[in-house]
Amino acid sequence: MSESTAPAAVSMETIVALCKRRGFIFQSSEIYGGLNGFFDYGPLGVELKKNIRDCWWNDMVRRRDDVVGLESSIIMHPKVWEASGHVAGFTDPLVDCKASKQRYRADQLFFSPIVVDGQTVGYVSALESENTAGELQTAAEAFKRKKAIQGTLAPVAAKDMTEAREDEIALIPSPATGEPGSLTAPRSFNMMFQTNVGAMTDASSVAYLRPETAQGMFVDFKNVVDTGRVKLPFGIAQIGKSFRNEITPRNFIFRSREFEQMEMEYFIHEDADWAKCHQEWIEWCKNWLLSIGLPESHLSLYAHPKEKLAFYSRGTVDIMFSYPFGVQELWGIAARGNYDLTQHANASGKPQEIFDEATKKKFVPHVIEPAVGTDRIFLAVLCSAYAEEQVTDDKGNTETRTVLRLSPRIAPVKVAVLPLLKNKEQLTARAHALYKKLQRKYAVFYDEAGAIGRRYRRQDEIGTPWCVTIDFETIEKPGDTFTLRERDSMTQKRITEAELFALLEEQVY
Amino acid sequence: MSESTAPAAVSMETIVALCKRRGFIFQSSEIYGGLNGFFDYGPLGVELKKNIRDCWWNDMVRRRDDVVGLESSIIMHPKVWEASGHVAGFTDPLVDCKASKQRYRADQLFFSPIVVDGQTVGYVSALESENTAGELQTAAEAFKRKKAIQGTLAPVAAKDMTEAREDEIALIPSPATGEPGSLTAPRSFNMMFQTNVGAMTDASSVAYLRPETAQGMFVDFKNVVDTGRVKLPFGIAQIGKSFRNEITPRNFIFRSREFEQMEMEYFIHEDADWAKCHQEWIEWCKNWLLSIGLPESHLSLYAHPKEKLAFYSRGTVDIMFSYPFGVQELWGIAARGNYDLTQHANASGKPQEIFDEATKKKFVPHVIEPAVGTDRIFLAVLCSAYAEEQVTDDKGNTETRTVLRLSPRIAPVKVAVLPLLKNKEQLTARAHALYKKLQRKYAVFYDEAGAIGRRYRRQDEIGTPWCVTIDFETIEKPGDTFTLRERDSMTQKRITEAELFALLEEQVY
Repeated sequence: MSESTAPAAVSMETIVALCKRRGFIFQSSEIYGGLNGFFDYGPLGVELKKNIRDCWWNDMVRRRDDVVGLESSIIMHPKVWEASGHVAGFTDPLVDCKASKQRYRADQLFFSPIVVDGQTVGYVSALESENTAGELQTAAEAFKRKKAIQGTLAPVAAKDMTEAREDEIALIPSPATGEPGSLTAPRSFNMMFQTNVGAMTDASSVAYLRPETAQGMFVDFKNVVDTGRVKLPFGIAQIGKSFRNEITPRNFIFRSREFEQMEMEYFIHEDADWAKCHQEWIEWCKNWLLSIGLPESHLSLYAHPKEKLAFYSRGTVDIMFSYPFGVQELWGIAARGNYDLTQHANASGKPQEIFDEATKKKFVPHVIEPAVGTDRIFLAVLCSAYAEEQVTDDKGNTETRTVLRLSPRIAPVKVAVLPLLKNKEQLTARAHALYKKLQRKYAVFYDEAGAIGRRYRRQDEIGTPWCVTIDFETIEKPGDTFTLRERDSMTQKRITEAELFALLEEQVY
Repeated sequence: MSESTAPAAVSMETIVALCKRRGFIFQSSEIYGGLNGFFDYGPLGVELKKNIRDCWWNDMVRRRDDVVGLESSIIMHPKVWEASGHVAGFTDPLVDCKASKQRYRADQLFFSPIVVDGQTVGYVSALESENTAGELQTAAEAFKRKKAIQGTLAPVAAKDMTEAREDEIALIPSPATGEPGSLTAPRSFNMMFQTNVGAMTDASSVAYLRPETAQGMFVDFKNVVDTGRVKLPFGIAQIGKSFRNEITPRNFIFRSREFEQMEMEYFIHEDADWAKCHQEWIEWCKNWLLSIGLPESHLSLYAHPKEKLAFYSRGTVDIMFSYPFGVQELWGIAARGNYDLTQHANASGKPQEIFDEATKKKFVPHVIEPAVGTDRIFLAVLCSAYAEEQVTDDKGNTETRTVLRLSPRIAPVKVAVLPLLKNKEQLTARAHALYKKLQRKYAVFYDEAGAIGRRYRRQDEIGTPWCVTIDFETIEKPGDTFTLRERDSMTQKRITEAELFALLEEQVY
């Protein structure tokens, strides 16, 4: 008997605590104080993540006739990143404080002139927060008070450091020292991790950890065309790690320095109706998110304004998700024209063309690119699946149950097999036989410890869709039926082994 | 009608050519001239690799009750690698040629004194090859001739540069210049790729790409114990990329710079019978290799001699595989005592102990570590599955067929669905319906182009275990049966859809 409630706004603290407590996610290198922006997936987390990944792969590659897979290396030839524009342009603007040696992202460091009776009497600064303007205002008032300046203080006008005029920079106080004069003008900081390959450590051996998997599909385009019997339109899909040296990683696994991407490049004819194809992929991606259990109420679309697009881009739409820290990008679907293939053709001297049988002309295909982060889906799944409910037991007692309403497709454990009593050999033997049979095909869990209600609760908290209890009716009555207890409704019914396998076959795919 | 032949010694050239031609493996960044030691997996390769990985994960984690999974980050806190000994000791000895700026692995650069009538008259050198001694001998003879030295030349005695005496180094010619005087003494070169995390590029921000996944299991040991309801003995398993800056990557994907590992740490009581446990894991690993189709004839065991083991090691046995380039290590199973956990306890100040309910004492568990590379298994699979056979068709013509005898567990395509004729709508409709039904569960391929015999050959070459042909008997006779053609025997029989699904259910797991 559950009082169904609308998905409550769960806090990040709750999610992070659950992740640690139940072994979904740990901070990387925790015993050494952690490493900012890096995370480890624990026993349950790795199963959930693998299930998300496998669902995507099966739906995107194996169940489609027009998409093939690829796994390119994380370290690629450095010319790949020159041609793609990442060496020159994949940068964040950074500001140094020469006094404290601190560094700040220029777009996260805000300032305002302090204007009294129309005169600028100084500057204040503050790091981006939930109340940046308020902090600047408070600082401005404090400044006026301290300097005993008479007159009317104008409301602050917050800008970030990328908007600072050259003459202003020397007047803006460093957040580290509170004094002006030590901040530098913003300069570009490349977000690619750099390393050296081979025995030399000099400019000739510089290489990068890929900041995206997508370039692998472009660089291997001709190889796939030459070997794969593919015909336009077709896609190349890849799942793999990418790395970005974020200055301020934040929001748990949402913006980390090492993350996993699931990207697909869908190549189309230069004369194809790209807008229609773009729209179809937006819908495919949204439907896929629904198919693994994300609630439609948390999803929205954001079309990038034309004037903010790169010159080669024809349009980008992001599927947004309502995270506890705000509505943020989950899945970007970009129409990129033929920019990437053209860049690599020019840089490598190797044409990246397809021959059109109809027109007898060669051309460079255009591309639609749906790109999503596995970790962002993982976080979206947890945040929207988490619920705390008031439930009443048979004796009329009310308690709170924590439940993860995970789709059976991605739940780390599909079925928990529970003998009603652990000291009754007939029950445990039957339970164990069922468990072993299920285990050949599914991730299942065997638990005989504690009261049955408590065992249900443990499974609720990790999102197990079904519990199967082997009870006295199983062993004493004909039919060999079990109690099937459903996680969300908490209803129970009798089920045979064959029916259980049919249920799993239908729901877990 | 196939003449069965014993597995022929396939050449690496043949395997590399097949990999490129059919899209198993490409050189990384090939359009930019490639990047030495890095590889991309193409459409068929990524499926084969994923199947190897999934079989291992299912057998090692999901189907066992005593092993849980983990996915730790590739970049970890640098102290992890200090504690593990990798910063100090994960090195190769390198020799520089100061004249040419070339670098050589000292253990791959060989030399010999030139001894004439018992007198050393000079030195020769050669890089390791299949005939190093012969090359040294030829060079010694040339030296004697050129210098017109009279007397009897003694046979060369090849040593590598790690064995060179200090006074010899100045006399050994550089392979680059042919002249002595420019080689340095061997020095240690750390094989970990280095990078910097965060905005600073200095010693404080140095980090490494992990050279093995194993340390993740040790560093997260307590987190797993605290959350996972695990009890000794139990294992933590991980699949993921590792990186080693090999000076001379070689043998295709056997020794590359970026590779994937499948490692498991099996923690046991300090008083447990480690030798028995070690032996059990050796057998488990060997049986697993057989279960994915590696032939027993290609496998052997190699026990590391006691005197070559690290001081903490109790024993290491490698499962060796007969590759075309020699018998090489495939899977190492090491008994590592409690060295790693102890190192991390000391370095982090965090005890890595388990409480023994029986003795009421805390202790640091010992560990058995089976560690294997996915890419090495991939290569072993291809080399032993590849065969060229003389076959005779119905008309008595003999031709060569290329066949990959891949286990159904790991074959990239499980079933090819083939309508006998492409212009007969009844055939193609039935074939397409079967194809779509199979596609929900399995990687399948639909092919209607060309003669049926040629279509069979195409599938043989990529290792598809079964072809199903929808023919006139399917649509004209009762029973809705298809022709099932088996890859290895090339025998054909009638089969129903239900029988086909049952066959797949049994063989693909």
